[in-house]
Amino acid sequence: MNAPRAPLRELDQALAELLAHAEPLSQTEAISTFEGDSRVLAQDLVSALQVPPQDNSSMDGYAVRTGEITEGATLPVSQRIPAGSAAQPLRSGTAARIFTGAPVPEGADAIVMQEDTESAGDDRVRILRVPERGQWIRASGEDVTRGSVVLAKGERLGAAGLGLAASIGMDTLTVTRRPRVALFSTGDELVMPGEVAPADMKPGVIYNSNRFFLSELLRRLECEVSDYGIVPDNRDATLKALEHASREHDLILTSGGVSVGEEDHIKPAVQQLGSLDLWQIAMKPGKPFAYGRIEAAHFMGLPGNPVSSFVTFLVLVRPFLLKLQGATKLAPAPMELVAHFDLPRPDRRREFLRVRRDAQGGLELFANQSSGVLTSMVWADGLVDNPAGRAIARGDKVSFIPLAELLG
Amino acid sequence: MNAPRAPLRELDQALAELLAHAEPLSQTEAISTFEGDSRVLAQDLVSALQVPPQDNSSMDGYAVRTGEITEGATLPVSQRIPAGSAAQPLRSGTAARIFTGAPVPEGADAIVMQEDTESAGDDRVRILRVPERGQWIRASGEDVTRGSVVLAKGERLGAAGLGLAASIGMDTLTVTRRPRVALFSTGDELVMPGEVAPADMKPGVIYNSNRFFLSELLRRLECEVSDYGIVPDNRDATLKALEHASREHDLILTSGGVSVGEEDHIKPAVQQLGSLDLWQIAMKPGKPFAYGRIEAAHFMGLPGNPVSSFVTFLVLVRPFLLKLQGATKLAPAPMELVAHFDLPRPDRRREFLRVRRDAQGGLELFANQSSGVLTSMVWADGLVDNPAGRAIARGDKVSFIPLAELLG
Repeated sequence: MNAPRAPLRELDQALAELLAHAEPLSQTEAISTFEGDSRVLAQDLVSALQVPPQDNSSMDGYAVRTGEITEGATLPVSQRIPAGSAAQPLRSGTAARIFTGAPVPEGADAIVMQEDTESAGDDRVRILRVPERGQWIRASGEDVTRGSVVLAKGERLGAAGLGLAASIGMDTLTVTRRPRVALFSTGDELVMPGEVAPADMKPGVIYNSNRFFLSELLRRLECEVSDYGIVPDNRDATLKALEHASREHDLILTSGGVSVGEEDHIKPAVQQLGSLDLWQIAMKPGKPFAYGRIEAAHFMGLPGNPVSSFVTFLVLVRPFLLKLQGATKLAPAPMELVAHFDLPRPDRRREFLRVRRDAQGGLELFANQSSGVLTSMVWADGLVDNPAGRAIARGDKVSFIPLAELLG
Repeated sequence: MNAPRAPLRELDQALAELLAHAEPLSQTEAISTFEGDSRVLAQDLVSALQVPPQDNSSMDGYAVRTGEITEGATLPVSQRIPAGSAAQPLRSGTAARIFTGAPVPEGADAIVMQEDTESAGDDRVRILRVPERGQWIRASGEDVTRGSVVLAKGERLGAAGLGLAASIGMDTLTVTRRPRVALFSTGDELVMPGEVAPADMKPGVIYNSNRFFLSELLRRLECEVSDYGIVPDNRDATLKALEHASREHDLILTSGGVSVGEEDHIKPAVQQLGSLDLWQIAMKPGKPFAYGRIEAAHFMGLPGNPVSSFVTFLVLVRPFLLKLQGATKLAPAPMELVAHFDLPRPDRRREFLRVRRDAQGGLELFANQSSGVLTSMVWADGLVDNPAGRAIARGDKVSFIPLAELLG
């Protein structure tokens, strides 16, 4: 009746084992740069040009030779250089009208900003303040130099990265293909919202919430998700569904059914079709986790409690899926913030506490840290990664990870 | 020749003025909860049930009456309660086999976890450790109580929020409709990647990068984006395009063409069709900004430099678009981190420095803070919001905003 107590595995060790199984996908695809958000580059982007291409003005004003002018000097305006045009060399003793982004004419060594000038009539300008050499000039290549790698293979693209790729003329990008993930829910107690009204819920049943956040978390990692719904409640149908899923997917992900004594059809079915290890991970929320394999497909079983499922996804499945895509950065760096709460009785396991920044920049703790309380994940703006057994007193520095960095 | 120098406007004041123009959209739509990510709730979500519905077990094990047992006691197992089933009252002097999530039988007041039991043969169990009253029992309603507002109108939904909505049985959600945004690029120096190869770029021209990150930033705010491309270079066509855009959109957004002396067709065209104010905002990167109106459509002109355009979007346009959608939270809370850099010569304007957390949890500064260097936004994981004129010395605490919280 008592199952052998599996030894607790440290989270870092579990993650390392899991990542050792994550062979990056070799297939790539070319996509429009407009569609590149959150995808992982499968090529180094090497610039064929300088950005900006020439020395150019960062102000509207007048290009001058600083050696020639003094405060109050008036100069004829010898040319007009809008952005996008080509400049003539600056004639000695003159100024060139110039606009933001326009190339600095040969011979000019600074820009007088428009506000530091006034009209002296007859296409002449009076210089009210003499600029320093180089002032308001952006040097060619100050953003990107020709031949440099602006974005490296393994970089996960964001809005700024797309802009940078565009700035060196890339209208398409080669990225790793999307991981294909089959999502199963397991648990006889689960019903889908919309299928049964709240007033008609039978005793013991609950709505399936994990399916909603897991599919969203997968989508944010640019996975193609096949939602297989609730695992069929007989062995043959389960075998068939898993076998089908294993042929078409890189990862089969389930939640529920991985605790010691839980009974469901998915565990024996995975064992029959491939291999399955049940892990006990020294983390809270979390602990039960399953890793297995059916043919080429990976299998991961998350715990069924919503917060356990959510957090286990963030710390184990997310880095795995990023590594599958070839990403070099798999997890955000934590930062030190001050606890504005006490945790006198810490857990023996490493704990991920749901916290929120307060108006003073410290951290508040959500009152109920139970793994069943999904409200805590909505309320929180971050997790404190607290080492096993470490009590926290108000004023202590703790390790904070913004949820936004784990959800993107 | 010298334009009147517009007085600098403080950023907070500019933002307040802008937000005063943002009348929340009144139209809503019902969407599947699966599609709700990043949308803003237009209704309070009130729970019609308790979550969890009954007191239930948070462990696999045995439900017992603690008053009846001592260490080493053996009890007959009188029933078996899987998750999703209904429990009978617990017969005195017996234990009930129970699984995670299953309802606690009437009369039982604690769960003995499976690891603290062993088989005593003949469907009997030996209790190796007596639990405390209430142990491993999750109380009905500990996550959500019937009648409570689980998510309020104005909440911007994330993965956890979708799960929480599902947990109270909501399969559809009423959200504010998406804002419709017309995006124009302006600048004769701009060409699109893909249209001209890097080797064929004429002097003075650059690739349009702003269009790529602005459309992505808009998409992340759940806007419907119409990309009008580069503003036509004659007055009539510009008038026509703006007039068309104003009829179909909530916001017309441009980048470039709002500096003091810049010449383009869009400014006079907006003035002719509606109204336009040119602002000088005391921020860096940034400063020039235009707000106007064409009929019911808002008009905003961002500066043309990529980093200025990006940061101005994040601190001004983003909160505006969130308010349009009725969101209650318009900006992330900054936090205090330690500078691992010096800024001996601060700007006279409030500055948003591109920084990154280092391995010690402090902040490094990107070497070139020029508003033309988009590389800085790719490199950075956050912005330091530095007050006007404030020098920073290594070790100082500074106000840090994670970019992930501004990009989501």
